[in-house]
Amino acid sequence: MQIDLGNVLDTASVHGVSRETLERLDDRVAAAHDRIERGRETDEHGYASLNLPSSTDPAEIREAVGGFENPSAIVTVGIGGSALGAATLTDALDSDVEAHYLDNVDPEAVASLLDSLDLGSTVVNVVSRSGTTAETLANFLVVQEAMDDAGVDWADRTFVTTGEEGNLRDLANQHDLPVLPVPDGVPGRFSVLSTVGLAAAALCGHDIEAVLEGAAAQEARLSDSLFDSPAYAYGAVCFALAERGYTANAMMPYAESLETFSEWFAQLWAESLGKDGLGQTPLRALGATDQHSQLQLYRAGPRDKLVTLVRATDREDVSIPETDLDGLAYLGGSSLGELLDAEFEATEASLVAAGQPNVRIELDEVNEYGLGELLYAMETACVVYGELASVETFVQPAVEWGKRAARGLLGGGDFEEADAVADKERLIID
Amino acid sequence: MQIDLGNVLDTASVHGVSRETLERLDDRVAAAHDRIERGRETDEHGYASLNLPSSTDPAEIREAVGGFENPSAIVTVGIGGSALGAATLTDALDSDVEAHYLDNVDPEAVASLLDSLDLGSTVVNVVSRSGTTAETLANFLVVQEAMDDAGVDWADRTFVTTGEEGNLRDLANQHDLPVLPVPDGVPGRFSVLSTVGLAAAALCGHDIEAVLEGAAAQEARLSDSLFDSPAYAYGAVCFALAERGYTANAMMPYAESLETFSEWFAQLWAESLGKDGLGQTPLRALGATDQHSQLQLYRAGPRDKLVTLVRATDREDVSIPETDLDGLAYLGGSSLGELLDAEFEATEASLVAAGQPNVRIELDEVNEYGLGELLYAMETACVVYGELASVETFVQPAVEWGKRAARGLLGGGDFEEADAVADKERLIID
Repeated sequence: MQIDLGNVLDTASVHGVSRETLERLDDRVAAAHDRIERGRETDEHGYASLNLPSSTDPAEIREAVGGFENPSAIVTVGIGGSALGAATLTDALDSDVEAHYLDNVDPEAVASLLDSLDLGSTVVNVVSRSGTTAETLANFLVVQEAMDDAGVDWADRTFVTTGEEGNLRDLANQHDLPVLPVPDGVPGRFSVLSTVGLAAAALCGHDIEAVLEGAAAQEARLSDSLFDSPAYAYGAVCFALAERGYTANAMMPYAESLETFSEWFAQLWAESLGKDGLGQTPLRALGATDQHSQLQLYRAGPRDKLVTLVRATDREDVSIPETDLDGLAYLGGSSLGELLDAEFEATEASLVAAGQPNVRIELDEVNEYGLGELLYAMETACVVYGELASVETFVQPAVEWGKRAARGLLGGGDFEEADAVADKERLIID
Repeated sequence: MQIDLGNVLDTASVHGVSRETLERLDDRVAAAHDRIERGRETDEHGYASLNLPSSTDPAEIREAVGGFENPSAIVTVGIGGSALGAATLTDALDSDVEAHYLDNVDPEAVASLLDSLDLGSTVVNVVSRSGTTAETLANFLVVQEAMDDAGVDWADRTFVTTGEEGNLRDLANQHDLPVLPVPDGVPGRFSVLSTVGLAAAALCGHDIEAVLEGAAAQEARLSDSLFDSPAYAYGAVCFALAERGYTANAMMPYAESLETFSEWFAQLWAESLGKDGLGQTPLRALGATDQHSQLQLYRAGPRDKLVTLVRATDREDVSIPETDLDGLAYLGGSSLGELLDAEFEATEASLVAAGQPNVRIELDEVNEYGLGELLYAMETACVVYGELASVETFVQPAVEWGKRAARGLLGGGDFEEADAVADKERLIID
């Protein structure tokens, strides 16, 4: 994996950073690195996430999923960080086992998914650290009933990923379900390299050891200088650009296999950095498609966006057949991959021509190792950004209000937040 | 369809609009309405899009797709506005015919889709007004070859949606393919209610007449006051909020069926309004899932986001079975729909509690009629926003630079933009 920061320099973008700025910023990166290393040494909350390349035991995961023979599908029941890491991996990699995610409580979508599955050969992974996440438990109850109705013993088809205590752990013990622990000190959005993110991939036959190896390769690159670490370089530059008014970051992979990665990144960035009135807003884009959707805005709209372009340098390709169609002969003999690469480079240059900053991230390949590198690097970039911005990277206090309100509305207790819902001011146009 | 603007008022959000501001803005809405009506009367470029509820002939569309018997799938080959409108409809509605979109040139994704289809029962719709869109024609050439290789006569399985002239029109004439015209004066992102957006839906068996009826119902509501038109009300409020610093608009439906609608909206908003250094950046979100991903940022991050919450008041529901799991008994006897609604209302109130503006849009149902209402209203909202902001809503000049650069890189001509690609400044960290 390599990262190219050439187009964030002030020579390429209007409010870009100078090389001198990067040098000065590097002193702060060194201090942030010290803080991160101290956190890692004691497995402090959050910082422990950056130790997962060595602290995760892939054999434990393989053992938990090893008892399910010839599954046709896996349904991960979880929401937010309990689903997005696993989905990033399984959506990026090919498998004969279909990986699905019940990460919403839309009744039509849940019913439609359950109807489409052969439940007798489907494996269910329920993921909730506390065992009390309302969406996850509600969906799990619906899945249990669907299996009952189909004459399938849900306890034969289910494993659980949860904390050391709580009702999901009790349930697992009671029914003798395989159970994986959620590691301590690892917030959901930083859990892709743990049991939480790797179990579905393992069940789909992916090489989870290689994911961890890729991550470890980036872990080994952490040092006290951004010039020696792609992860720190990316995080520090994002921070410096946000300070200069680039308060949005469009993650734009040129690979459909990385579309879910952009969603994962959006959660990582938004929940970790969006606090105290600060935060760089993640945008989810996809090359080349969104050149025909978002590029007009990125080039000619407000100067508030960094665009992060991601591609793999090695991939399977498809030749474009020769054609005598008027004006299109130039495509013949080329390939879809060459077309995609030309569009990638053209978009990058077109942003520079408009003075808009962009970063290029290149993986060797979208495979287990490359994903491990990318995911670990983005997590570390987020952590170093959080240090530089002096925010509490590993908490998400602003989501608690709504959880209490929803619980109150459903009769799950007496919460004053639920009363506020009834006080809504209305101005209805219909 | 109804829209509730109560939470954009200054009583609910920190930099909200006062009722007096809305009254003053209404004079400008009246002037914008005049301009829009003049444009519609002469079918002026762009404004002609708002006449589609009556100018589109559904019978013509049904005839073009009627010759394909018992198709298993339709593949629309198009990019940007040539795909997103159709995808919004077919992804929102259930059908036995699978609808796929080749709207990118990722070779792995294209090969994977073509491998998965029964090409002998697949219908192909090639959509390009000019007939020269590089991505679309390259993909179509690949599809032709795949059909040849599978022993399928591609000319038997293909229909074309294109302009009155050009090489795709010639190709259709030469092979006697069904051909649908792209209407004049309708930019791609405003074409969902035309042949471009409705053909795939018709082939999937959806009631395209009802889509047009829903749109016509909103068309009938256009008037010289935002207080009488949901579409104008939404557009005017988005404009007023953008002027007050809310430069992002998170489109957050609480229905998985509307996930593609958010992508369609993002193109509409970004390409139409993102120019002259202005524009409100669309964010794509999904409730309830993104409460666990983006809500922390929306509540506690910069005060630069409007959140647009969309739901249907009528839908199929799924009961949540009773449970004795510790602390979760309150969920039993409720339903997933009730849980989703509670989360919708809790999120809305939680944004108000943080002083962040939000709009509620409610459809009766996610069906053909409701989609017609919603899509027409959003298009009109976009047009009135463009009038208020004095931007040229119907052009997208900033994307041309990259098209020329890509074409030059592929040997399709001598373009100075392609030379700029080679001049890229590099600062590589690896």
